[in-house]
Amino acid sequence: MLVVMNPGVTDNEINEVEKQLKGFGFSVHGPKGNNRRIFRISGESDVDTTIIEKTIPYVEKIVFPHYPFELASRDYQEEKTVFKVGDVEIGAQKTIIMAGPCAVEGRESYLRTAKAVKEAGAHILRGGAYKPRSSPYAFQGLEEEGLKIMAEAREMTGLPIITEVLDQYSVEIVAEYADILQVGTRNMQNFRLLKELGQLRKPVLLKRGMSATIEEWLMAAEYLLSEGNNKVILCERGIRTFETYTRNTLDISAVPVAKELSHLPVFVDPSHGTGLWRCVPPMSMAAIAAGADGLLIEVHPSPKEALCDGPQSLMPDKFAQLVNSLKKVAETVGRTL
Amino acid sequence: MLVVMNPGVTDNEINEVEKQLKGFGFSVHGPKGNNRRIFRISGESDVDTTIIEKTIPYVEKIVFPHYPFELASRDYQEEKTVFKVGDVEIGAQKTIIMAGPCAVEGRESYLRTAKAVKEAGAHILRGGAYKPRSSPYAFQGLEEEGLKIMAEAREMTGLPIITEVLDQYSVEIVAEYADILQVGTRNMQNFRLLKELGQLRKPVLLKRGMSATIEEWLMAAEYLLSEGNNKVILCERGIRTFETYTRNTLDISAVPVAKELSHLPVFVDPSHGTGLWRCVPPMSMAAIAAGADGLLIEVHPSPKEALCDGPQSLMPDKFAQLVNSLKKVAETVGRTL
Amino acid sequence: MLVVMNPGVTDNEINEVEKQLKGFGFSVHGPKGNNRRIFRISGESDVDTTIIEKTIPYVEKIVFPHYPFELASRDYQEEKTVFKVGDVEIGAQKTIIMAGPCAVEGRESYLRTAKAVKEAGAHILRGGAYKPRSSPYAFQGLEEEGLKIMAEAREMTGLPIITEVLDQYSVEIVAEYADILQVGTRNMQNFRLLKELGQLRKPVLLKRGMSATIEEWLMAAEYLLSEGNNKVILCERGIRTFETYTRNTLDISAVPVAKELSHLPVFVDPSHGTGLWRCVPPMSMAAIAAGADGLLIEVHPSPKEALCDGPQSLMPDKFAQLVNSLKKVAETVGRTL
Amino acid sequence: MLVVMNPGVTDNEINEVEKQLKGFGFSVHGPKGNNRRIFRISGESDVDTTIIEKTIPYVEKIVFPHYPFELASRDYQEEKTVFKVGDVEIGAQKTIIMAGPCAVEGRESYLRTAKAVKEAGAHILRGGAYKPRSSPYAFQGLEEEGLKIMAEAREMTGLPIITEVLDQYSVEIVAEYADILQVGTRNMQNFRLLKELGQLRKPVLLKRGMSATIEEWLMAAEYLLSEGNNKVILCERGIRTFETYTRNTLDISAVPVAKELSHLPVFVDPSHGTGLWRCVPPMSMAAIAAGADGLLIEVHPSPKEALCDGPQSLMPDKFAQLVNSLKKVAETVGRTL
Repeated sequence: MLVVMNPGVTDNEINEVEKQLKGFGFSVHGPKGNNRRIFRISGESDVDTTIIEKTIPYVEKIVFPHYPFELASRDYQEEKTVFKVGDVEIGAQKTIIMAGPCAVEGRESYLRTAKAVKEAGAHILRGGAYKPRSSPYAFQGLEEEGLKIMAEAREMTGLPIITEVLDQYSVEIVAEYADILQVGTRNMQNFRLLKELGQLRKPVLLKRGMSATIEEWLMAAEYLLSEGNNKVILCERGIRTFETYTRNTLDISAVPVAKELSHLPVFVDPSHGTGLWRCVPPMSMAAIAAGADGLLIEVHPSPKEALCDGPQSLMPDKFAQLVNSLKKVAETVGRTL
Repeated sequence: MLVVMNPGVTDNEINEVEKQLKGFGFSVHGPKGNNRRIFRISGESDVDTTIIEKTIPYVEKIVFPHYPFELASRDYQEEKTVFKVGDVEIGAQKTIIMAGPCAVEGRESYLRTAKAVKEAGAHILRGGAYKPRSSPYAFQGLEEEGLKIMAEAREMTGLPIITEVLDQYSVEIVAEYADILQVGTRNMQNFRLLKELGQLRKPVLLKRGMSATIEEWLMAAEYLLSEGNNKVILCERGIRTFETYTRNTLDISAVPVAKELSHLPVFVDPSHGTGLWRCVPPMSMAAIAAGADGLLIEVHPSPKEALCDGPQSLMPDKFAQLVNSLKKVAETVGRTL
Repeated sequence: MLVVMNPGVTDNEINEVEKQLKGFGFSVHGPKGNNRRIFRISGESDVDTTIIEKTIPYVEKIVFPHYPFELASRDYQEEKTVFKVGDVEIGAQKTIIMAGPCAVEGRESYLRTAKAVKEAGAHILRGGAYKPRSSPYAFQGLEEEGLKIMAEAREMTGLPIITEVLDQYSVEIVAEYADILQVGTRNMQNFRLLKELGQLRKPVLLKRGMSATIEEWLMAAEYLLSEGNNKVILCERGIRTFETYTRNTLDISAVPVAKELSHLPVFVDPSHGTGLWRCVPPMSMAAIAAGADGLLIEVHPSPKEALCDGPQSLMPDKFAQLVNSLKKVAETVGRTL
Repeated sequence: MLVVMNPGVTDNEINEVEKQLKGFGFSVHGPKGNNRRIFRISGESDVDTTIIEKTIPYVEKIVFPHYPFELASRDYQEEKTVFKVGDVEIGAQKTIIMAGPCAVEGRESYLRTAKAVKEAGAHILRGGAYKPRSSPYAFQGLEEEGLKIMAEAREMTGLPIITEVLDQYSVEIVAEYADILQVGTRNMQNFRLLKELGQLRKPVLLKRGMSATIEEWLMAAEYLLSEGNNKVILCERGIRTFETYTRNTLDISAVPVAKELSHLPVFVDPSHGTGLWRCVPPMSMAAIAAGADGLLIEVHPSPKEALCDGPQSLMPDKFAQLVNSLKKVAETVGRTL
């Protein structure tokens, strides 16, 4: 149960509300986060909740979410979450394209790709500096060197950068460079990492776990929100099924479902979602047509030589064509790009 | 291996080719079907296949498909399959909407719905007369009475009708009434039924099995094609995964994949694919944006009273709105509706 | 809701019960089947069911099953179903081994294998005469010739035979030869076939669909039972998951679950369940340890030359060793073999 | 490719081998770990590997693993890995039972359960002090207090203890108390955590990821082994499938498969694997019959009041009965318990 206080409530007022709620016998959690307006209360108190609204000052409303993800739910916040990363507005009317290679492999090639994707119309640069690899013997990323190259690309292009944070050790260093921190599919239920990123207050893109239900995904977002970070982007990236032709099965229906259940912006990663570059354009079109707020697309200048995930990367010219097509689809669903 | 004869080859010429192929030591199958132009040959013969092209008359080309589905593959036929059902062209530039209730429940309600979906812009009427139900105690369909009602609706609206054929017993009766015979997800590997429908030569819509790989689906189509019926529509309808929020996981990526591997038209059923009427519009949009050749949509005048699959049925007015939106998406991918 | 009449109820008495139930306003179905003792009633009647027990003669009890599978449930019948096939008792204290090649490929080799599996201790011979194959170009079975060979093997060994019935066309011919009719995984929801086999009253082994939940599997059994055939064996044969190392994922937990929910005997097919002959012995042991009532095992004298499913077939000598080990496991769970 | 040096090789000799391998143009990794005998070499060198064996001293053999998991494979080590935890030998002829409640909830109840499971025949105590919970609002474990209670139970019973390490922050503290560190299903691909645990050299029980293939699981073990820790136990705990009756689908076939591919001991967790306490005994029996080296079983004195996973916990008396039955099954597969 959530107790939402009036906008602009002061610290003293918050303390007073907390005291009264405890007086009624509730366990009280919060308020946390940027806006510091919500207490989550629980417990055996038999106080009628309408009493709370009537007798405790500074309380705007009591919310009973239908779902275990409370702060992430539309019950808690009807209007969509919108926030800015640099000049780029996430979750608003404009659909957003994040693009770049799977891994940062070298300075020159990354800067070249960054320039190309910017010219093609991308709004945010992606790139991996710390890579989760199923083999300990595979290329594991350039680490801080990669982050520095990305920062240089940001300076050159003016675009914000997104990169994956793999574990607690690298939270600080990644947060120093990145504008958005990406939580990968294998870390969706790395709860300690989520808590830290929740306290950090930098925007987080939370990929759906490859075998996570939509509810579990929203519960993972709740970990971020309950620590006070509400700059959260959900990203569908394909789930694991019996089908082997595609690398994963991109669950486009997760877009309308997540948007109905939650106020958070929902992105789609068609590159990991299919594992096949030829499927990236049609699935990007599908995602925008289904209402996605943005895309995460792998672009590589020479996919055959990529150290990671070449088969699913688009060449820059194909990407530029795709952006043009996406503009038209965005318009048919009442948005821009 | 396929031996494709020249267009217009005569029966005598066919016999001659067959004799020569056998003379080379091959097992020879075919030719079957409408165009009667293809032998499928196999066996231990060590004859160089260029010899066949050079020495046997009336042979246009030898085809070595990359996939076990030979006749269904793009190796065998590069250009898309297009055929007509009444005045409706399937697989062509125009995207096609098949719509109607899951089950035909009564004359009046069906005719009313048929009128409504026609006015909204549907091209083909759907409806179930024989229903596959997981419980023996559930409503099993109106059977022939349902077919008669559908035929009346066809007369009234001028639209062709599609309905499911459940088993071999009803092939004849269903074929008598229906313009397109639908093979349901549970029957995708009912090989005997496929063989019969292959011999029948009426258009068949083949739903993907709920746990069938794309390759198995195309192999099922191969059963139809190898009997000589090339009027086959593939229909993605959702696959079974661990996600339970949606009834199935609609695999939109099956559209570009199936269209790349095969020349057959590919439709999508967002109603069964999601099981949630609110997801039907966004997933319909996604399917067309991904390149689907058409849609199969459940429409019911009062979903709450539907005897079957109410929760996934659109009301006629929502359907009419959807058709308008779909027109715009179709245009953005270079098609009409 | 089930109305169970007294044992030995006569036709006149049945008619009287039916009349009275209808008089109370119920829809009445049944009684069907061998014992003809159960009415399934439904409808809007507001009669208190204790009234029925008290006022209608010849009624033993009213049963309200917890599950949609009513006749298959333990609510309906607490004690395990036991029936005889020839001299072999199914579902009793003794665990039963059905063994033989996937497909009957020829007279001599089949008779040889039959002899070997009998000597090794098998109780029932298996073999496929009609084969469901994903490719129309693959070996489809010897059909009636195969059935005749199996009948000859029965005469030679004295063992009953089990074989698959693929479709309605072959029900009659298969029933003429086979002692048990097998319904394959692809046909688990071929409802018309199930209804026919329900009317036939010959024992049926019903394989679980490769993507069927346990509840759907029991609902398929309900189709057989509701037509009056209660000689039904459930057979777990592996479900389709993301794992590709094994052909399917053999769901051993389906054994205790199905046995708790239903009174029907439960068998396991470790050959299809794993697709790997080296996994067949440990998984056979596991199945019996988990409480399975029997096994269905593929044995082939020279697996490398098998026309179908060689990689999952045991050689006769390995099979003989396995039967010895199985005897010991059976004893540890209080059974024999 | 692995270069295995003679047993007892000295540091000087190792340096010499390394120098020569580099002289041949190879990239050289290792040796790491307890025995410090293996270099992993890679690269473009065109030296015939028989040359290495012949010309470089102290080299016992060159190994070319068939699988990407090299150190975990039977190619690298044919004989099974056996190691001791306290007095308990893991991977040897005796099957091992780890038992206890899902979470440590309080001192008294834990000590009581510990005593009961010891008396029933368990060899190792389990209990969770740090709990991964899908909701941020759920009980997250007693943390260090829980570890202290477990240590007290160890002192009282003489049994070693196993508990989960959730993240890098708690590695040190958990390692201080625990005899075996458990990596949970959500952390199977937390590669940084694996690397740290690899360097720690304490025994690790690595649960299979809920959607991990067997190959990915062995690759995760490779992360531990490649850092030099070869005290690794694999633990199958159920995979995520479409079936919802059981919490997961316990993949018993993973036991024979993992044991064939790898020399590491393989355990099974039937409690999480099924989520249903009534399924725990039959599935425990199945696991041992299939060749598992041990079990991880949840036991709770009053499951209905458990703060975590009550429905899958056995009462102590049922557990004691189960251990008796397991002894008999272990004997039928040539082992003890």
